[in-house]
Amino acid sequence: MSDSAVPHPVAPSREDFTYFETITLRYADNDVNGHVNNAHYYAFFDTAVEGFLRATQLRDALAGAVFTPVVASSCRYFQEISYPGDVVLGVKLARIGKTSLTYEIAIFTSATGLTAAALGTFTTVCTNKESRRPTEIPAAVQTYFKTQPAH
Amino acid sequence: MSDSAVPHPVAPSREDFTYFETITLRYADNDVNGHVNNAHYYAFFDTAVEGFLRATQLRDALAGAVFTPVVASSCRYFQEISYPGDVVLGVKLARIGKTSLTYEIAIFTSATGLTAAALGTFTTVCTNKESRRPTEIPAAVQTYFKTQPAH
Amino acid sequence: MSDSAVPHPVAPSREDFTYFETITLRYADNDVNGHVNNAHYYAFFDTAVEGFLRATQLRDALAGAVFTPVVASSCRYFQEISYPGDVVLGVKLARIGKTSLTYEIAIFTSATGLTAAALGTFTTVCTNKESRRPTEIPAAVQTYFKTQPAH
Amino acid sequence: MSDSAVPHPVAPSREDFTYFETITLRYADNDVNGHVNNAHYYAFFDTAVEGFLRATQLRDALAGAVFTPVVASSCRYFQEISYPGDVVLGVKLARIGKTSLTYEIAIFTSATGLTAAALGTFTTVCTNKESRRPTEIPAAVQTYFKTQPAH
Repeated sequence: MSDSAVPHPVAPSREDFTYFETITLRYADNDVNGHVNNAHYYAFFDTAVEGFLRATQLRDALAGAVFTPVVASSCRYFQEISYPGDVVLGVKLARIGKTSLTYEIAIFTSATGLTAAALGTFTTVCTNKESRRPTEIPAAVQTYFKTQPAH
Repeated sequence: MSDSAVPHPVAPSREDFTYFETITLRYADNDVNGHVNNAHYYAFFDTAVEGFLRATQLRDALAGAVFTPVVASSCRYFQEISYPGDVVLGVKLARIGKTSLTYEIAIFTSATGLTAAALGTFTTVCTNKESRRPTEIPAAVQTYFKTQPAH
Repeated sequence: MSDSAVPHPVAPSREDFTYFETITLRYADNDVNGHVNNAHYYAFFDTAVEGFLRATQLRDALAGAVFTPVVASSCRYFQEISYPGDVVLGVKLARIGKTSLTYEIAIFTSATGLTAAALGTFTTVCTNKESRRPTEIPAAVQTYFKTQPAH
Repeated sequence: MSDSAVPHPVAPSREDFTYFETITLRYADNDVNGHVNNAHYYAFFDTAVEGFLRATQLRDALAGAVFTPVVASSCRYFQEISYPGDVVLGVKLARIGKTSLTYEIAIFTSATGLTAAALGTFTTVCTNKESRRPTEIPAAVQTYFKTQPAH
């Protein structure tokens, strides 16, 4: 009966990220409450992670014989965001397991400035296309992760 | 470097829920991978929680002077789901804090039978419309929660 | 400078259709105006036409060596529709050209009763997968069209 | 039994428009066919028309005592468009009736260059908020329309 089920994480800052992607909001993103519906945040995460993988050329290593289905995602909503306007998504590869990759994605707007309006996580599992079984993270991705400044 | 960041929860069963809502899938729910895109799951959760609140008449208690913005959501994806077909959503009020309500939502399909294809959480905070500050959960909701069989 | 650009067609009736498909509305279908956003109607059309093609087994004839990209669509909005609730879509194959198929799709709700809330059209062109050129409508579809009561 | 139901309009060119709005595509815009699903085009139209009305300050005249529900929309699809990438929407006020406004919206991409990939129409009716009846287009909008170069 306590609120302990709802931890209050600190909203990340722009300086916690080095990769950014801008997404334009659409009229119908706003629901009847006049702000972007909570489900659309995940469409932003999806898009930003894909953009990150393409920009870092990690997508090439995570294609071909493997694919990367999402096994878990989450979002903490700190401040509402609303059409019209753009959102800027910060993305980083936050955790790497034997077979899984977890990204953190923060949403920034001109209204919220340097502090994120929301923080998401997105976990995918590197999966062999033939066996449909989890398979080891490609070396290129492991190397990328190890050479990044800090996590 | 372990997979500990990705716990492997047991997929819930239909018998863990008493409220169910059927949602029809749409052609464009499937993305380029031929299965329902991960973001749409949250549109299902949103809809199922609202249906649960209307069916239990808890929505009446959570309107008027208060509103209930979402502060956190999450999803674990166990098995892929695909258009065409329906999904059945099981919903329950899983945790109640001083000011927050957390729902659990499971997605069932005819393909996955009694075991959930996905499990979501959805946490809202009861908020005063004037002060925009968190406010105590209405008594009607607390009473409902206490008189439910088991959580 | 007249309103002639906006003809006022008569909203069709349920008896104008023999194939129906029910689609459940979702919370986020409603936009800030509190009714289903105009773009979502086309997601309903898409889904209902695909359901019609599967139910009539015409989809089998319109697959394999051919695919059927949409080349035109339209909608007339007679009455607003809103979540919560279901919509019932009536679908018929309205016109058949050498290479094109035009469907008419009407949206009915419990609020609008026997008269459609909206009327859509959806035109696809039968296209050869290799040449990417329009190709003749398969005989099975032509036969189906000719044996239907009235258009 | 001819294709006359499917006229073949000429795809417009960038020079047919003076107002443009850029919309970023999202991962889930692509459907199972690997291109942007036909329904999403209308979400782009919606957004681009609203952007046009804000940029031209016509939105101010079309608010307050009136609102502008959509009564008709249409789209001709000339070439497929696909995530990743941006689309550029050209918008113009194409026709003005006593109570209705029809916009034309063209979609351009880097792949299609100066020729539109799609052409949409979007017709709204100026409606009195109290009587819910069509009402005359505000003078400011009529003046704007008359002073535009050519239609």
